[in-house]
Amino acid sequence: MSDGGDLVELAKRRGFFLQSAGAYGGVSGFYTFGPSGAALKQNIEDTWRNRFAIQEGNMEVDAPTVMPEPVFEASGHLDGFDDMLVECPECGESHRADHIVEDNTDIEEAESIPVAEVEELIAEYELVCPTCGTGLAGQAIEDFNLMFETNIGPGSADPGYLRPETAQGIFIEFPQLAEYARNQLPFGVTQIGRAYRNEISPRKSLLRVREFTQAELELFVDPEEDEPALEAVADVTAPFYPAADQEAADGQPYEATIREVVDDGVVGKPWIAYYLGVAKQWYESIGVDMDRFRFRQHLSGERAHYAADCWDAEAEVDGDWIELGGFAYRSDYDLSKHDSYSDEEFTVFKQYDEPVTVERATVDPDMSYLGPEFGGSAGAVADALEALAERDPDAFDESEVVVEVDGESHAVPVEKTNFGVEEVIESGEHITPHVVEPSLGIDRALYTALDHSYREDEVDGEERTYLALPQEVAPTTVGVFPLMDRDGMGEYARDLVEKLRAAGLAVTYDDSGAIGRRYRRQDEVGTPFCVTVDYATLGEARDDEGEPAAPDTVTVRERDTTAQKRVPVADLPETLTALRDGERTFDDL
Amino acid sequence: MSDGGDLVELAKRRGFFLQSAGAYGGVSGFYTFGPSGAALKQNIEDTWRNRFAIQEGNMEVDAPTVMPEPVFEASGHLDGFDDMLVECPECGESHRADHIVEDNTDIEEAESIPVAEVEELIAEYELVCPTCGTGLAGQAIEDFNLMFETNIGPGSADPGYLRPETAQGIFIEFPQLAEYARNQLPFGVTQIGRAYRNEISPRKSLLRVREFTQAELELFVDPEEDEPALEAVADVTAPFYPAADQEAADGQPYEATIREVVDDGVVGKPWIAYYLGVAKQWYESIGVDMDRFRFRQHLSGERAHYAADCWDAEAEVDGDWIELGGFAYRSDYDLSKHDSYSDEEFTVFKQYDEPVTVERATVDPDMSYLGPEFGGSAGAVADALEALAERDPDAFDESEVVVEVDGESHAVPVEKTNFGVEEVIESGEHITPHVVEPSLGIDRALYTALDHSYREDEVDGEERTYLALPQEVAPTTVGVFPLMDRDGMGEYARDLVEKLRAAGLAVTYDDSGAIGRRYRRQDEVGTPFCVTVDYATLGEARDDEGEPAAPDTVTVRERDTTAQKRVPVADLPETLTALRDGERTFDDL
Repeated sequence: MSDGGDLVELAKRRGFFLQSAGAYGGVSGFYTFGPSGAALKQNIEDTWRNRFAIQEGNMEVDAPTVMPEPVFEASGHLDGFDDMLVECPECGESHRADHIVEDNTDIEEAESIPVAEVEELIAEYELVCPTCGTGLAGQAIEDFNLMFETNIGPGSADPGYLRPETAQGIFIEFPQLAEYARNQLPFGVTQIGRAYRNEISPRKSLLRVREFTQAELELFVDPEEDEPALEAVADVTAPFYPAADQEAADGQPYEATIREVVDDGVVGKPWIAYYLGVAKQWYESIGVDMDRFRFRQHLSGERAHYAADCWDAEAEVDGDWIELGGFAYRSDYDLSKHDSYSDEEFTVFKQYDEPVTVERATVDPDMSYLGPEFGGSAGAVADALEALAERDPDAFDESEVVVEVDGESHAVPVEKTNFGVEEVIESGEHITPHVVEPSLGIDRALYTALDHSYREDEVDGEERTYLALPQEVAPTTVGVFPLMDRDGMGEYARDLVEKLRAAGLAVTYDDSGAIGRRYRRQDEVGTPFCVTVDYATLGEARDDEGEPAAPDTVTVRERDTTAQKRVPVADLPETLTALRDGERTFDDL
Repeated sequence: MSDGGDLVELAKRRGFFLQSAGAYGGVSGFYTFGPSGAALKQNIEDTWRNRFAIQEGNMEVDAPTVMPEPVFEASGHLDGFDDMLVECPECGESHRADHIVEDNTDIEEAESIPVAEVEELIAEYELVCPTCGTGLAGQAIEDFNLMFETNIGPGSADPGYLRPETAQGIFIEFPQLAEYARNQLPFGVTQIGRAYRNEISPRKSLLRVREFTQAELELFVDPEEDEPALEAVADVTAPFYPAADQEAADGQPYEATIREVVDDGVVGKPWIAYYLGVAKQWYESIGVDMDRFRFRQHLSGERAHYAADCWDAEAEVDGDWIELGGFAYRSDYDLSKHDSYSDEEFTVFKQYDEPVTVERATVDPDMSYLGPEFGGSAGAVADALEALAERDPDAFDESEVVVEVDGESHAVPVEKTNFGVEEVIESGEHITPHVVEPSLGIDRALYTALDHSYREDEVDGEERTYLALPQEVAPTTVGVFPLMDRDGMGEYARDLVEKLRAAGLAVTYDDSGAIGRRYRRQDEVGTPFCVTVDYATLGEARDDEGEPAAPDTVTVRERDTTAQKRVPVADLPETLTALRDGERTFDDL
């Protein structure tokens, strides 16, 4: 663990990330990943893709980041995706009202407190502008929509928004995606991409930014039938922190297996439990410390009304528990919304095992009676009779049926409706799938992996900083150094670099400065292995009998232990690949 | 080659790409990549990364897509990134004036014609609104800025723009990136990511869109020293179409090697020639047909004033030559601009081989003379003397020196300036690197690869459509089918899928419908190999002696030839990997 400042300094110095546009004073909430960070991010995304898409047989899509307004009318983001904005009357600076309350009182989660109450709290605690110290009592709090808005094409007729989540790009294409899945549930669709949130006051480095990368899976399931193959992760253990324990005076997270939390009903939806198991393994694989990790259930106040159950993956970073990802059972909310707001149907046809016979009430109103009787309303009366037959066939048990058209009641003798009940054979029905959504933030996962792998120790009496990143995700797998760039060692090392790159390894070459300094540089970017070409490699070191001591071998040095072993150059591509993929350990060499 | 309609239809049906938000009527210029398209795009990006970043030793970064206004003031996009907009007085529809001219006259490249002349052409040819047919003569043409604009944070004090190119995200971080490169030129920085262009009227499917993916390399070189290692691509041949040949009556593209175009001076900058060679190999590797490909030099009118030389990679698609990528020698334009607009220096310190001794003229004006003589202007006169000494030391050869301050001339006796010349030892100088920019569009490359690999033939008397995509980039490498999902063949095939996926292969499983239909489905997404598990696999087919005929073997079928061979299941992961990587051919099996 680092203190945040050390990590941010190392991140900039070693090319992980830095605030963007520093030459122009920087822009809050926007970060650029340097060479080390971009490689780490790419590796993290690749492992996510492998685990959540490829291994699970889910489909990946890639949708635009700019989307038209109707999508967000349907999704609810246009109305409800707001933060509380308070402007300082003196300096004009904008702040999040809930953050001012949280930072200056014992109140937590002020975000869920109604606006009027937050205004009262500001007055009551005499809270002031964090920038200039002016009192904020009496300032109105506004709802500020967090979507970045723009215009598509000339003029302002077609507003567009930068997507606040990748999910909507999946939901709106559901009709077509269901066809790709041949309308067979369950099927899952993933997307990794940028999402945006126009934060009022971004803070905490990569942890609250305005542009970020999400990795989301939308799994479409038949709520009545589909069950996950839980065995695959049944024995995975993780710390769970259910809502009840959070609300209890002495409640604490506790360790349990996925099987246990399903059997106990702690996690109500097996699909959610399944992906908690998958996620736990994935977070561990990218370097999140499982001693500072937990799954926390949303309290009822936190949860969206449509979400049957919702859990967050959380990690402890700089002393705070931060959200790494959310796992929500969203029921049919998203597809129903788009179904009703758009021109298409967001359902799949579910075949019954056996065709079923159902009774259907029908009418065939006698228009030669309705026409003269109801004049211009006759058609509407006929439609109303039809709707009534479908809704409430028992109404036709009486001698007269009463329907309402444009606020007026009309009585029709039942024999003029030609009411009847027929038997119909149905082979299936249209159902709206439920959505299971594991939604993970890539930037936060990356930041946490860096923070949790940050180490300081002492080597040869000198202080050393290194990143104990798992070799699977480290930006560089191998650093290759000639002892010096002379006597052919430089050429030998550069040839070796080409060979290792051709084998698909991520390799850095460095011949600058003392060998110890080169080790330190690689330690600081988390490179798990360094290879040094020396005089022995060239066949110029002699053993006791005066023969070349270890020609065509190099030293391989392990980052965490700084232990070194000599390995034949011919075996190097295979050995390093096996080390990276976890098929061999350094101790086995 | 397809006619565009067939390809767009296949692209939607088979999950390559579709216009986004179809359920809401669609949005022009925005496309969603379905499962096949997202995989193909990912593979194309990976091969680009491997060729342009990893193999070349260039660094990759990942910057935000939203950038603040000062960046685009410096880059020139705020002023000059415009299209000609003409609005119909009748229906209000907006159109690109230059396109209306091109579509209805013989005039080409109307984009480079001044606005006033385009207005005249519209009147002269009596051109009409493409939507409603109303005459457009007399309508004013506006400059429409193509950047999507938004606001960062609350209010409109901080405008932001969706980047029109990934390049600026590299340029503005140059001071830090140069540090990562330890200030050693040449060094290259790549980025693959979204870029945006708010087209007035997007068209031609993926070829002119509002949101797209760019892969750019900014190579920073010392213009006086750095040369590429041309040998690596010296023998690569490609069709070249220099400006002179385009302007000649009978000029045609001609085939030449990279070495030849450098030696002949056809491509003036060896760095550009080097990356043309790299790009040609890359385009070929992803499936662009080299018979419909060329490098075309920009005509002097097309070229930005600062660009010393500029070439486009072009491909013939649907009968038109389209731009796939640009290769520009941008001199010091970008870094100089950011240097002068920002607070930082965009230079590197270039060490001389040997320190040099230079003469430097200095003055030390006698203020006890200047003070009484020039009063409040004395300080400004002293500054002016200092500047003059630096600029024109010969001016101090006279008995009197004349300097101008606030428009007034002041004469100073030379002995009062204490003019002198001293020798200074300099170890190097700050230089502004030149930029070599290969800038490639991923969406257009993808579309072209699909178009060029689209084939129709006849198999067993039936028409067949297939995509002859190179196996390296095909969305799926292997389709695995059980002959039927019964008698254990389904289980066997599903186990095989897991094994092949574990070996890192992209695999699709399909057990639905007749085997011929399953082959056709895979043909249409360009899957190079299909594997079928049949009764022989299970050991249930018998040879002449009544023994199991070919147990634990499967048929492997090649897409283009539809030829089939039996291969032992145990060898399959290795065999298919070797086929995908081009290390073996199907004929060798």
